[in-house]
Amino acid sequence: MNAQEAVIGIVTASDRASAGIYEDESGPAIEAFLSDVLTTPWRSLRRIVPDGLEAVRDAFIELADRDGCCLILSTGGTGPAPRDLTPEATVAASTRMMPGFGELMRTKSLEQVPTAILSRQTAGIRGRTLIVNLPGRPSSIRVCLDAVFPAIPYCVDLIGGPRMETDAARCRAFRPGG
Amino acid sequence: MNAQEAVIGIVTASDRASAGIYEDESGPAIEAFLSDVLTTPWRSLRRIVPDGLEAVRDAFIELADRDGCCLILSTGGTGPAPRDLTPEATVAASTRMMPGFGELMRTKSLEQVPTAILSRQTAGIRGRTLIVNLPGRPSSIRVCLDAVFPAIPYCVDLIGGPRMETDAARCRAFRPGG
Amino acid sequence: MNAQEAVIGIVTASDRASAGIYEDESGPAIEAFLSDVLTTPWRSLRRIVPDGLEAVRDAFIELADRDGCCLILSTGGTGPAPRDLTPEATVAASTRMMPGFGELMRTKSLEQVPTAILSRQTAGIRGRTLIVNLPGRPSSIRVCLDAVFPAIPYCVDLIGGPRMETDAARCRAFRPGG
Repeated sequence: MNAQEAVIGIVTASDRASAGIYEDESGPAIEAFLSDVLTTPWRSLRRIVPDGLEAVRDAFIELADRDGCCLILSTGGTGPAPRDLTPEATVAASTRMMPGFGELMRTKSLEQVPTAILSRQTAGIRGRTLIVNLPGRPSSIRVCLDAVFPAIPYCVDLIGGPRMETDAARCRAFRPGG
Repeated sequence: MNAQEAVIGIVTASDRASAGIYEDESGPAIEAFLSDVLTTPWRSLRRIVPDGLEAVRDAFIELADRDGCCLILSTGGTGPAPRDLTPEATVAASTRMMPGFGELMRTKSLEQVPTAILSRQTAGIRGRTLIVNLPGRPSSIRVCLDAVFPAIPYCVDLIGGPRMETDAARCRAFRPGG
Repeated sequence: MNAQEAVIGIVTASDRASAGIYEDESGPAIEAFLSDVLTTPWRSLRRIVPDGLEAVRDAFIELADRDGCCLILSTGGTGPAPRDLTPEATVAASTRMMPGFGELMRTKSLEQVPTAILSRQTAGIRGRTLIVNLPGRPSSIRVCLDAVFPAIPYCVDLIGGPRMETDAARCRAFRPGG
């Protein structure tokens, strides 16, 4: 058992939350999910940044390269509005893209609302860091994490990160042949 | 109620139709769908252009920038044949891509024919214009529009276009929280 | 009936198999599928290359441009590990991408394992050659070929390759209107 602590970045992309106009509920919702499912040591680093390509990209790069996050979960900025550039920031920060994450999150969200196809969520890898875009709304965040989190611990294994275990009653992490 | 007229571009990409060798049936099929479902003021601008990247891209750009279309629906040129370059034209004309449209249209078309995976349909945004690729065959056009049109009015809202309303018995436009 | 022989490239991307450390089982699994389903003349050209962008890309280009393959099926190198760069090699060798193949293979594989979203499989066209990435495991290869092969003969028709026919009891090739 590798007890190395997992450092997980949580990035809220929101002009209003970063300006203090309203309180970020999405970052705490992601943190609550992690508290609920992870059974191995972890800690989070939260960042609230304005929308737009540069601020989000730079937050991803710092959390990956300087802070050593094995996983970064972002919320916000994935819609079609002009300031929604989190997917472009993810492409800019990543060396390889993971299209299956966005496809599955859209498929699952589509069971809730037909406007799920407007989400441009994606995921990518930067070195030893997996970056995954989540939606902005706390209720949608849970739907997406329930769908994709089972594959995340194995992905983190494959890119050289710490071994993460989950409470199988809440979210069953899957490792092929494991 | 915003009664601003929606200007909708309809682009048929077809070497044969643009040369007058056969009559375009796909553009009229799109127009018939719009007549059927939209209850707010709109008018269409139809273009029939040869296949290939430049002609299709330039039609998209003119309809967006000069003619002020909030929505452009294209038909044709999304297959694997060498002259099928409508997706590349869409990428060239767009600043941000909307992968969920192509994914859903392929999923729905796959219920009809296994060759649906050969469609390279996509969608993108150029300024205040949403560009969506539809298939070439009138029967497939309807399947795709039934799938994605419910999300289009809200997308047009988000990019600053006119408010479009639909006849819910024919196509229920969805706006979250609306 | 066009009895022109189909030349099909099979590329195994694997550092270990190319170094002779273990025996390639994936290339033979692909060949066995083809033997099982194709009823028109064909022959295969097998290549075992190390992982990484250049080796895989160059194998694709040689098989397409020099050897005249109408179809290249690759196995391996589509995961998130640092040396898994087959999708990038496919993009580098292709002029147009075919996103529907990867989407459908992930959807089908997801019925088997939740880690299917980690596969970055894609497909693309280079001239008269269709390149399709398959997974590394023989059992997953079959699931993916069963899903996408019905569309491949028609795709090869459209890009100017030889007409391939299949045994409909094993894999029903579909041609619209055919």
